[in-house]
Amino acid sequence: MVLSMNSKKMKFFPLMLFQLVLVVLFFVFVRYHDASHYQKNPEQIQPGTFEGTHVMIFIGFGFLMTFLKKYSYSALGFNWLLAALTIQWALLCQNFFTMENNTIYVTKKSLLEADIMSATVLITFGAILGLASGLQLLVIAVIEIVIASLNLWLVTGVFKAADVGGSIAIHTFGAYFGLAASWALRFKKTEDSSNTPTVDLNGPSYTSDVTAMIGSIFLWIYWPSFNSGLTQTPAEYEMATVNTYLSLAAATVTTFFVSSAVNHGKLDMVHIQNSTLAGGVAVGSVCNMHINPGGAVLIGVAAGLLSVMGYKFLTPKLEKCGVPDTCGVNNLHGMPGLLSGVLTILLAALATKEGYGTELSSIFSAMTEDEAGRASSSQALYQLAAVGSTVGLALVGGGVSGLVARTSMFEPLKQNEKYDDELNWELP
Amino acid sequence: MVLSMNSKKMKFFPLMLFQLVLVVLFFVFVRYHDASHYQKNPEQIQPGTFEGTHVMIFIGFGFLMTFLKKYSYSALGFNWLLAALTIQWALLCQNFFTMENNTIYVTKKSLLEADIMSATVLITFGAILGLASGLQLLVIAVIEIVIASLNLWLVTGVFKAADVGGSIAIHTFGAYFGLAASWALRFKKTEDSSNTPTVDLNGPSYTSDVTAMIGSIFLWIYWPSFNSGLTQTPAEYEMATVNTYLSLAAATVTTFFVSSAVNHGKLDMVHIQNSTLAGGVAVGSVCNMHINPGGAVLIGVAAGLLSVMGYKFLTPKLEKCGVPDTCGVNNLHGMPGLLSGVLTILLAALATKEGYGTELSSIFSAMTEDEAGRASSSQALYQLAAVGSTVGLALVGGGVSGLVARTSMFEPLKQNEKYDDELNWELP
Repeated sequence: MVLSMNSKKMKFFPLMLFQLVLVVLFFVFVRYHDASHYQKNPEQIQPGTFEGTHVMIFIGFGFLMTFLKKYSYSALGFNWLLAALTIQWALLCQNFFTMENNTIYVTKKSLLEADIMSATVLITFGAILGLASGLQLLVIAVIEIVIASLNLWLVTGVFKAADVGGSIAIHTFGAYFGLAASWALRFKKTEDSSNTPTVDLNGPSYTSDVTAMIGSIFLWIYWPSFNSGLTQTPAEYEMATVNTYLSLAAATVTTFFVSSAVNHGKLDMVHIQNSTLAGGVAVGSVCNMHINPGGAVLIGVAAGLLSVMGYKFLTPKLEKCGVPDTCGVNNLHGMPGLLSGVLTILLAALATKEGYGTELSSIFSAMTEDEAGRASSSQALYQLAAVGSTVGLALVGGGVSGLVARTSMFEPLKQNEKYDDELNWELP
Repeated sequence: MVLSMNSKKMKFFPLMLFQLVLVVLFFVFVRYHDASHYQKNPEQIQPGTFEGTHVMIFIGFGFLMTFLKKYSYSALGFNWLLAALTIQWALLCQNFFTMENNTIYVTKKSLLEADIMSATVLITFGAILGLASGLQLLVIAVIEIVIASLNLWLVTGVFKAADVGGSIAIHTFGAYFGLAASWALRFKKTEDSSNTPTVDLNGPSYTSDVTAMIGSIFLWIYWPSFNSGLTQTPAEYEMATVNTYLSLAAATVTTFFVSSAVNHGKLDMVHIQNSTLAGGVAVGSVCNMHINPGGAVLIGVAAGLLSVMGYKFLTPKLEKCGVPDTCGVNNLHGMPGLLSGVLTILLAALATKEGYGTELSSIFSAMTEDEAGRASSSQALYQLAAVGSTVGLALVGGGVSGLVARTSMFEPLKQNEKYDDELNWELP
């Protein structure tokens, strides 16, 4: 069996095998549009958002996860590897449901969509950072993309739910998939208690907390690109940009106050690195709607508060219940994503009302133009279905992938191999 | 009194209070344009400059200030906090003077302008880096944005002065506001001499100088975006980009020579991190004019020379005179900004001449289109007025804000709390 080949040299061979499978699948299914397509169709994504989203995925997520004192190589390396792998795999999985004549067309837009999808895997990676082996990460990522693509098709294709920034189908999905995987993975009991590490590596150094800020701030800067990349009109694009930006700014200010307030006057770098960004998640699904600039700021305040409280009080409890969450993805992606989902339900329900509703219903009806007759009350139910499908599939999928990954074939880590670059890297 | 609540937990409460006031002000005053606005008006800022300017503000300024060995968390954290706060506050203050029907419209352009304005606060922060408490920074920032917005309205709205890259109204203002605040703040004499720190923290470590280079180089890369973001025509946009880039390149080469020459053949990281950028400041106010590519390169040479000499000879003298300037903002923003201001005066005076003048006067007359009859000699006087107003308001405003901030209500630092993350951060 290839996967259990007993040579260290071949440790990453399953990875290479999967890449070779991708080569074959690309030859069989993936094509360019012909030149006439580009003359008829202008660029379908907003300018700069392709590059901005890549900065988020590769610099942002990568450096944010370097906060552990001896896991920076793995954070950067595996982040890069997982994203490079899932972009290819997601391009296939995401377009599988809408394929015509067995052909998938690769465009900047479909690559951006795949790029956005890779965030789900990286969020999941954040939940189990330092706890899973390379092979475990690989198998979890491959399974996750299949299920996340199915869910995305349900959310956008079937329910036609509002989720322009992916706070439901990307952030919420990635977080709860990761928590379920974390829960399932920890059932592995091979480690004997004698091999606990001498130093606790599950924490930062002064320098690793500084490099983590590179990721955090780049995520902050390009979050408006992430949320607005797939908007359709100039007005919608500008609104998504402006609302995301305002929500992020308010979440940042709020995070500083709340972090200090729950820590006897001292700021906690974990909060600063993460909760500042919760405003981008919480506004994500509604950022292209007339939520009012004041509404955007208020959502940011709520997100910052929710996120810091989660880090302070919920994450330790989850860990005790057997669900470690190394990066606290529940607080940055999970709960703020759910907040965004709830906001879409409320706003859809409001969309029949006067004033506010007029603009909102134009968004919702543009979204559901092939079913123009859908009432806003039923749209609210479809939004609820989108949130439900996301949480349900994420929990089941994450649990199953964790149960698969914990088998010895995928080489689970011993206790003294956790949070440590030593296992996989030549260290200076 | 809220500000003096004696609980450490509530240390940052005034910050939260201000954020909540912002929520209310946004609900009352700030609105989106309706969708038809975007059909009639194409994007009003140059592509990519919004994102590029954000990289400068959050990554650039933030990481540049990590050069101190034990103040990196504060540099990154307070930079982020101050920028997030002042972007919201500046959006209100900057548009206050031109508000119609008590409504401020938020667009990508108005956010970019607020973003640019936040640079003044960050430059001021650089002057007093490590010397001011969180509350002092907050009150100084809130006051500074009000006065800087008034000055910007005078410079661009009343004097209609040329200042496309903000070297006068942003860089010069921020630097002299900061120096005046630094002068006013140090009059606080609460510290007894016995509590001087055992280690001198006002200096870099090997790592902190490397992380500072992240900021420095990103500032360099996106400086052309900063200077060209608000240009009006494609020709002006291209000229601003090209001139800024050339000036930066020449300043960089010059900095290496001069740094080595004044240091017995050794390069000083402070010069390399800062004076390399002085070319971007010095060319800022004239970068959209026909200064000749050779002129741009020459301005860069002058800026690099001026800046390194300032670091070497002027900053130590200022410190002795009771005006500490931790980052040397006088050498990066103050003097190069004044140089740019002087250049606008000279070029306005030249604008009647043949050849050179024709293109220049088209810039000046486009700027002053509602007063097409304004002679170039009077434009020169208006440029002088812009520089004078900037320096005057900055010095007075900075002095006043420093005097306000030094009261015990804003918790001035003790001697052994300076340049130290310990006071505000959980450290590993």
